[in-house]
Amino acid sequence: MATAVKRLLVGRALRTAQAAHERLTKKTALAVFSSDALSSTAYATEEILLVLAVAAAATSGTSFQYVIPISIGIAVLLAIVATSYRQTIHAYPSGGGAYIVAKENLGTTPGLVAGASLLVDYVLTVSLSIAAGVSAITSAVQGTRYDWLGDHKVILCLVFIAFIAIANLRGVRESGALFATPTYVFVISFLFMIAFGLFHYFTYGGAATIPGPEELKTADGYKVQPLTFFLLLGAFSNGCSALTGIEAISNGVQAFKKPEAKNAATTLIWMALLLTTMFLGTSVMAFLYHVHPKESETVISQFARLMFTGPLGWFYYVVQAATAAILVLAANTAFADFPRLSSLLARDRFLPRQLANRGDRLVFSNGIVILAIFSGVLVIAFGGDTSKLIPLYAIGVFLSFTLSQSGMVVHWLRERVTAHANWKKSLVVNAIGALATFVVLCVFIATKFIHGAWIVVVMIPLLVLLFRAIHKHYLMVAKQLSTEGLEQLGPIKHTVIVPISGIHRGVVSALQYARSIASDRVQAVYVDFEEEAAASLRDKWERWGAGVQLVVLPSPYRELTRPLLRHINRVARENSGAIITVVLPEFIPARWWQHVLHNQSSLLLKGSLLFKKGVIVTSVPYHLEH
Amino acid sequence: MATAVKRLLVGRALRTAQAAHERLTKKTALAVFSSDALSSTAYATEEILLVLAVAAAATSGTSFQYVIPISIGIAVLLAIVATSYRQTIHAYPSGGGAYIVAKENLGTTPGLVAGASLLVDYVLTVSLSIAAGVSAITSAVQGTRYDWLGDHKVILCLVFIAFIAIANLRGVRESGALFATPTYVFVISFLFMIAFGLFHYFTYGGAATIPGPEELKTADGYKVQPLTFFLLLGAFSNGCSALTGIEAISNGVQAFKKPEAKNAATTLIWMALLLTTMFLGTSVMAFLYHVHPKESETVISQFARLMFTGPLGWFYYVVQAATAAILVLAANTAFADFPRLSSLLARDRFLPRQLANRGDRLVFSNGIVILAIFSGVLVIAFGGDTSKLIPLYAIGVFLSFTLSQSGMVVHWLRERVTAHANWKKSLVVNAIGALATFVVLCVFIATKFIHGAWIVVVMIPLLVLLFRAIHKHYLMVAKQLSTEGLEQLGPIKHTVIVPISGIHRGVVSALQYARSIASDRVQAVYVDFEEEAAASLRDKWERWGAGVQLVVLPSPYRELTRPLLRHINRVARENSGAIITVVLPEFIPARWWQHVLHNQSSLLLKGSLLFKKGVIVTSVPYHLEH
Repeated sequence: MATAVKRLLVGRALRTAQAAHERLTKKTALAVFSSDALSSTAYATEEILLVLAVAAAATSGTSFQYVIPISIGIAVLLAIVATSYRQTIHAYPSGGGAYIVAKENLGTTPGLVAGASLLVDYVLTVSLSIAAGVSAITSAVQGTRYDWLGDHKVILCLVFIAFIAIANLRGVRESGALFATPTYVFVISFLFMIAFGLFHYFTYGGAATIPGPEELKTADGYKVQPLTFFLLLGAFSNGCSALTGIEAISNGVQAFKKPEAKNAATTLIWMALLLTTMFLGTSVMAFLYHVHPKESETVISQFARLMFTGPLGWFYYVVQAATAAILVLAANTAFADFPRLSSLLARDRFLPRQLANRGDRLVFSNGIVILAIFSGVLVIAFGGDTSKLIPLYAIGVFLSFTLSQSGMVVHWLRERVTAHANWKKSLVVNAIGALATFVVLCVFIATKFIHGAWIVVVMIPLLVLLFRAIHKHYLMVAKQLSTEGLEQLGPIKHTVIVPISGIHRGVVSALQYARSIASDRVQAVYVDFEEEAAASLRDKWERWGAGVQLVVLPSPYRELTRPLLRHINRVARENSGAIITVVLPEFIPARWWQHVLHNQSSLLLKGSLLFKKGVIVTSVPYHLEH
Repeated sequence: MATAVKRLLVGRALRTAQAAHERLTKKTALAVFSSDALSSTAYATEEILLVLAVAAAATSGTSFQYVIPISIGIAVLLAIVATSYRQTIHAYPSGGGAYIVAKENLGTTPGLVAGASLLVDYVLTVSLSIAAGVSAITSAVQGTRYDWLGDHKVILCLVFIAFIAIANLRGVRESGALFATPTYVFVISFLFMIAFGLFHYFTYGGAATIPGPEELKTADGYKVQPLTFFLLLGAFSNGCSALTGIEAISNGVQAFKKPEAKNAATTLIWMALLLTTMFLGTSVMAFLYHVHPKESETVISQFARLMFTGPLGWFYYVVQAATAAILVLAANTAFADFPRLSSLLARDRFLPRQLANRGDRLVFSNGIVILAIFSGVLVIAFGGDTSKLIPLYAIGVFLSFTLSQSGMVVHWLRERVTAHANWKKSLVVNAIGALATFVVLCVFIATKFIHGAWIVVVMIPLLVLLFRAIHKHYLMVAKQLSTEGLEQLGPIKHTVIVPISGIHRGVVSALQYARSIASDRVQAVYVDFEEEAAASLRDKWERWGAGVQLVVLPSPYRELTRPLLRHINRVARENSGAIITVVLPEFIPARWWQHVLHNQSSLLLKGSLLFKKGVIVTSVPYHLEH
């Protein structure tokens, strides 16, 4: 039954040999790798406005104008980071994730810190992207007869997560077919919206601004306050969520057509340009049309609704659908990255080895399931609200940016002899990247710590400690299991003990089996609760004992396990060095519920013998029918 | 740790030989066996009034006068039943519970019906008695600073149940010391209260009646209606709860001093007389003093409070404390009876055999725990309200009365030759008893069916079906395990298969063990996911294979269990008749949580081999340190 359900959900198993690698053209690669980065334009501007809204009352709404300088600052940061990563692509053409770059150049602990940050971040990417995607949908249906969807955001999020998890368990590849259409529809519709908005504004003037909502939505956890520099830093931090996902291409260089590095670098530049244009464009739109954040509708939905009316009304729905689709794809990217990174960590023995196993469909199924569970829990805990998740986000990203760029700095220092002539320039670029992302990381922690960032700040070191503990365990096991220094042992001396509860067919076969494995060193042991039963057993022993010695252990306290264990210890002492095999006659009911009707004493006994050295337990089953 | 807690709660284990039987004098036996019966006077009158209250509005309160004729009717029924049971005592001096009498004389099914009724009833006795005891306490503290206890009835009930269960797990015997004091204090204080009440009334007249409460409490589930004959029958049914527990002495004849039967019969008469006096007295008090049922205070508490004022004020608390104490003892009686009856049923193979095992302290621990759980659930489900539980109660009692008395009728017919000369008179007495209890049973079902009695009417047949199914299973097992017709088998041919995951110390010892039990018929099996690993294994095999044949099974779908099972089947076919021992090398981590870090493949494999005939599984543990 369980198997049938599994087959229905994930499809039939795939052969190991069926693992294949698709090589992507630049155009498709742009679609595949940029969904995460580009999708953040769907919420980055709004997250800036949410913080600025805190000071709206104190400044009569002029605080919203700061969205422009802040967005420009973020665009500059984006340019720095993109340039930095361009170099990583050339230096690590086989794929240079932050974990690998940091581990190789800075050492294991920085590598693990980068790994932990990324894992945390992938979980957040899923929760946040899905929450934002659901907001795009609920904004679109707002005021229609599907308005009630807005009351069920959390459930919608969970449905989407389950859907993506199942698709990934089936083994959705990051195929061009899946990604190209929604990504390009999103890009084109956004660019069109921005161009149309600018044209409209400069032709008709700003007459068509949106009236401010009755109640402004503000960033979670903030109180209304005057406009301070610290508040602006907070808005800047929120906007930095636009940079997440920018590292994706540097992880996947191998997926490009030849020459891989060159193609990947070019694609990165294109992605950065698109991202900058779309993000700045959105911020400018919000500024020109005076869009203010609102509880029931996203910022983008507000001005798309304003712009596309009358005969262009359908285009509003295209924008919303494309937004929702690209956000779901962004979550899907995390579903590829999280299992891949955790399998790398598992292969290096920092995570349970089960995470390195490929499932039926050649995907790392355990990682997919774990990601789905964690992101689902986050969505529930934070009520599916994007703005509540934002303070937790981006710390992991910027921490891994910083580690990865610092790693690159060390890389250039080490490789200065063998690397290309321009290594000094490259070092400077990466150093600027490292410094810039580090500063942003500090700003982020300072401004968001009390709003939730502390959770991540606490989580990452804990994860690193966990990785270390797991690693220590595996090393210990490997050392203890190693055949190094092992001598071929002499023949084994062994003694067999058969605990019996009386004479029945199950016991008779167990005795026979015991004799077949050690003909003359077998003893049957009976634990005696009442004397009469023991006497009747001795009578039958003549006929059924098969010549085996019968030991009767008195048990005045009606205990079974303790007298047996004591006897086994005694036998072990008397035959030092011998292995003791305990042969347990067990009858197996035909149906599972029938187990309730029988004493579970053999289970208890097995449990207590499990940790006993030199004792081997064998169950001789006697199968019952019906 | 768990053992330490258990020792603290239930005390140290007792030897089987310490089981002892106390013989009771009539005076102590009266205390031990009558707590259940006598305690029902604490609520029987109130339950009659609750139904009469339904018609109070339609009759301007005169409906309450019917408490007297109804109580007299119940007293007559009580006399009939007591006389009937007197005969059972003489006929079954070794103890004649309804289960035994019905099973011996009417057949297995009636016996099981009686058994099921009694089990259901014991659960209800606990819930009901404890709920009534808690009401006695909350009534007493009503209006004092402990008034808040009234809001926590359910929790109080659960605490009492847990307390009694633990006391019984420790092995509280039904000792005179425990029972005598509260029972006699209860009897004397009740008798005094009744006498004092009568004296008071006839000296000063009825001036001191209680003003009717602002809102009458009525029986659960009834709507206000006119006084009908059917309603009076309902009130009568409720009052019949006074008869429960009357059979206790006939179950425990063996506990009396010699001559057992005669002493028991005399004690029964005494108990019946006391019960009649106390029950009728309470009803008369309620009638004379116009006590009407009230939500926050029991009927008995109301008139005890009225009567004992001024210098006698302390006596009110004596009455309430004695009432609470005897109700707790009544529940305690069920804690002795339920495990005893279920152990009888288990010994006859109608219930899981675990119920027939005596625990550390020589009591049937499993029965005690089950009773505590079920009665706790009932208390929670019915909110600890006595009047909600009443409709479920007494069906089981009267059904078992009817079956037991009918059994006695058959008994006299069968034994007419050997029995005493007066067997015809005895037969008539039991026939009247059977008929009377049967009529009451029908009245009970008719009047209470929709108020909850249906639950019990459905439960009892279901329980009987369950007993039957369990019995069938045990018979089948016994038949299949019987050595009857079994021939001594010839020597066993066997083959050993060692599934391995590579070469390590654990595998090396498993191979050595396998060779020691079947030197030349051993093969190691490796399931191959990737070719490289298999090649490296073959290289090492020379040195560590100990001459054992190595079989490599390709697994293109990365499955472990399926290829192994297929191979085992193949080997089984090739060596038909041989037993296959699967020797599993298993390493055992030092701490339980470390299991998470290792594949649980051997567990899966064991699970799938468990139901396979002719296959025996042996785990060869390799114990890891740290």
